[in-house]
Amino acid sequence: MTIDIQHLNRLREIVGPQGFLDQPGDLAPYVADHRNLYRGVTPLVLRPSSTEQVSRILALCNDVGVAVVPSGGNTGYCGGATPSADGSQIVVSLSRMNKIRSLDALNYTLNCEAGCVLAGIQTAAEAADRFFPLSLGSEGSCQIGGNLSTNAGGTSVVRYGMARSFVLGLEVVLPDGRVLDSLKALRKDNTGYDLRDLFIGAEGTLGIITAATFKLYPKPQTVVTALVALKSLEGAIELLAQLRTASGDAIVTYEVMPRIVIDFELKYLKGINDPFDRKHDWYVLVEVQSARRDPALSDAIQESLSAAIENELASDALVAQSEAQRAAFWSMRERIPEGERHAGASIKHDVSVSITDIPALVEEGSTAMLKLVPNGRVISFGHLGDGNLHFNLCQPEGMDRAKFEALTPQVNRAVHDIVAKYRGSIAAEHGIGRLKREELAHYKSAVEMDVMRAIKKALDPKGIMNPGKVI
Amino acid sequence: MTIDIQHLNRLREIVGPQGFLDQPGDLAPYVADHRNLYRGVTPLVLRPSSTEQVSRILALCNDVGVAVVPSGGNTGYCGGATPSADGSQIVVSLSRMNKIRSLDALNYTLNCEAGCVLAGIQTAAEAADRFFPLSLGSEGSCQIGGNLSTNAGGTSVVRYGMARSFVLGLEVVLPDGRVLDSLKALRKDNTGYDLRDLFIGAEGTLGIITAATFKLYPKPQTVVTALVALKSLEGAIELLAQLRTASGDAIVTYEVMPRIVIDFELKYLKGINDPFDRKHDWYVLVEVQSARRDPALSDAIQESLSAAIENELASDALVAQSEAQRAAFWSMRERIPEGERHAGASIKHDVSVSITDIPALVEEGSTAMLKLVPNGRVISFGHLGDGNLHFNLCQPEGMDRAKFEALTPQVNRAVHDIVAKYRGSIAAEHGIGRLKREELAHYKSAVEMDVMRAIKKALDPKGIMNPGKVI
Repeated sequence: MTIDIQHLNRLREIVGPQGFLDQPGDLAPYVADHRNLYRGVTPLVLRPSSTEQVSRILALCNDVGVAVVPSGGNTGYCGGATPSADGSQIVVSLSRMNKIRSLDALNYTLNCEAGCVLAGIQTAAEAADRFFPLSLGSEGSCQIGGNLSTNAGGTSVVRYGMARSFVLGLEVVLPDGRVLDSLKALRKDNTGYDLRDLFIGAEGTLGIITAATFKLYPKPQTVVTALVALKSLEGAIELLAQLRTASGDAIVTYEVMPRIVIDFELKYLKGINDPFDRKHDWYVLVEVQSARRDPALSDAIQESLSAAIENELASDALVAQSEAQRAAFWSMRERIPEGERHAGASIKHDVSVSITDIPALVEEGSTAMLKLVPNGRVISFGHLGDGNLHFNLCQPEGMDRAKFEALTPQVNRAVHDIVAKYRGSIAAEHGIGRLKREELAHYKSAVEMDVMRAIKKALDPKGIMNPGKVI
Repeated sequence: MTIDIQHLNRLREIVGPQGFLDQPGDLAPYVADHRNLYRGVTPLVLRPSSTEQVSRILALCNDVGVAVVPSGGNTGYCGGATPSADGSQIVVSLSRMNKIRSLDALNYTLNCEAGCVLAGIQTAAEAADRFFPLSLGSEGSCQIGGNLSTNAGGTSVVRYGMARSFVLGLEVVLPDGRVLDSLKALRKDNTGYDLRDLFIGAEGTLGIITAATFKLYPKPQTVVTALVALKSLEGAIELLAQLRTASGDAIVTYEVMPRIVIDFELKYLKGINDPFDRKHDWYVLVEVQSARRDPALSDAIQESLSAAIENELASDALVAQSEAQRAAFWSMRERIPEGERHAGASIKHDVSVSITDIPALVEEGSTAMLKLVPNGRVISFGHLGDGNLHFNLCQPEGMDRAKFEALTPQVNRAVHDIVAKYRGSIAAEHGIGRLKREELAHYKSAVEMDVMRAIKKALDPKGIMNPGKVI
């Protein structure tokens, strides 16, 4: 299935000679996803430089029935930006639309184009003495359009919420090329349906987000970082509630780690030290921030942790006394995937349940996975404060990698069944893309799927936007 | 246009003898809105006691083409819950569905039915040592289903956001009677389109919200309330930024009041005292909360206010030293509408712009209103921290009330034109209902209206849900 050469030529004309790629070497970065799960084919990557060009591209594609895959920094985990293998889809990269259009410090807002790299937005906010809270591993290369299309999470969701929480306005090019401009910088606007949140998290299946207006926050002046050792996940959940009160609800990060990830890091990576003098079953990385200079905050956290140790809720705790110590704590958390890779292949899950159901999920999920893969190594870590775990199974030592990976569907089904039992999510922060499309159809209720399909059909009747993804 | 008696009988059967009202005296509270702007006619008010009954009601209405008006506490400002005058619409009141279904303190979530009165939810949260942040004037009688359908605002939006900000899951009966059950208690869930936010703020035009799961917060342990006198609105905006930092971004309330509202209160109401020894052009009520016991917070606010006075940003300031003084400050803010009513009729606007555009809006809007109504009294007060003003014009002393009220359309148009120029909202927190339906069509872009209509048609193809409202 190829695209008519005349259509391709008209698309090239829209963006001009600087605005497209069509040589195999140039196309390569756009046809594989970052985890190398998918490999596609496309004759053309368009790199529009304006909303108007995006509009003309989609109008033409809608007219002639050419499918479009929007592409950001290509850091997604679910293949949502990879074209199909049959060559029938063009890719539209937003990379050249990377301007910060305005920043209003007193209104605490920033307006920028979809191709802006996340770290650049953080920096721009900081230069204006403001704080842009979205933060995640790939922030040096992911683009904000992709972050919005996947409603990205990251390490500050406890305090600031998912990406959608700080979006005030969007500019979206609809599948037929019309521009939906709701780039308002308003904190309150009850004029009809909330269209904005429909496009956020839609993974490019309803249109292309070309720009957004974000809320900014005061810059943190006080940061307290602690590493806590615990006997149990239950304890970590109880401690979270105590720390929410002790900190004045200022917890930004609450990340859990089982002992095994530290063992992997100590075994395979350099520059990691065992943080306590003995081993513990669970660890939590806590970070608390305040926009005010607040020396008492550290004391309050310290006191709360001491009380937790006294009450045998926690086993031990360290509050970072220097930036270097803080960095060491964070490094333990951030290098988990690296340690995991050294230990072998992993079958991964990105799931969430009510925080209070996390212990049961880990218990039942581990049993189910180990029944399917005896001697597999369960690695459950991540955003405990949001009820979101990266709940992975690392291959048993010595097992054949391909044999292990062939068990992926069964392991996924077993874990996702338990998640469903607890009314959880099988895609807490990474989205659906192509990877979980079938799982979504399996677990989402028929009514929800029907409503999603009705909306898709209403907004993209010809189905040109990112077909084969999400629904 | 009457409804077939057979349909009415079948509807009565669904809810049983306790579940409907059809006597004129009983119907009266349901056919007029709370501001007495609209008066409708209906043959039947249904009071279902379960989601299943709501489902059967809508399935039947959809089947036979009977229009449905959902009704909560009937405290809305825009006639969104009043049936039409032709008797062709039935009312579905959610009042009997008023159970708090569950509360999970460690997950910081509460699940309840749509007919719960807002104050009851606040109380239930408090009993579990938690905080439910939605707070507004009518909280003793408004119902949470209405709060969600209008995406209510109130006095704590600066910190906690609009109603939609703390909804985790919804149960909605679709126009054809199917139940969309996404009552999850998850902080992260990226499994497809965000349907939840589509129903929130849709004012009952896409279905009936029957239950919701909310985020709760730690209970505030420290509250600092201050009343600040200012020379200008610009000063109030600059001060807001300074206080956000000084308080550790803990401002919950930031309400502005012009001198005239205090003059009205002093003139017409009892129990109001002029707070400072001289008059000031503008006042701001600031409230800061922390979930932690934090004696230094009051000092930090005091210091920041002292510095503001020294820098001539503020003229004077009082930090409440007792609960009685705090109540007195709040009373000044809360009794504004009462004082305004005593002064005469008002033409009201509920508008928002970027916070930094507030001074220009007030300047230009006042000029425009006074051009149309010389000697009118401009009353611009409210949620400055959200960029949302209740921007009203009170009738000139001695002017005929009816003559003044006849100028409403011109005054509205003049103000809304200026709001539109600043890319603001003509319905910041009260919604559209019937009152602003034509204004919405006038100001909203054609593309936005088209997308809204496409969604309405996709979800409610027969148009039975609250026709004549919003779109």
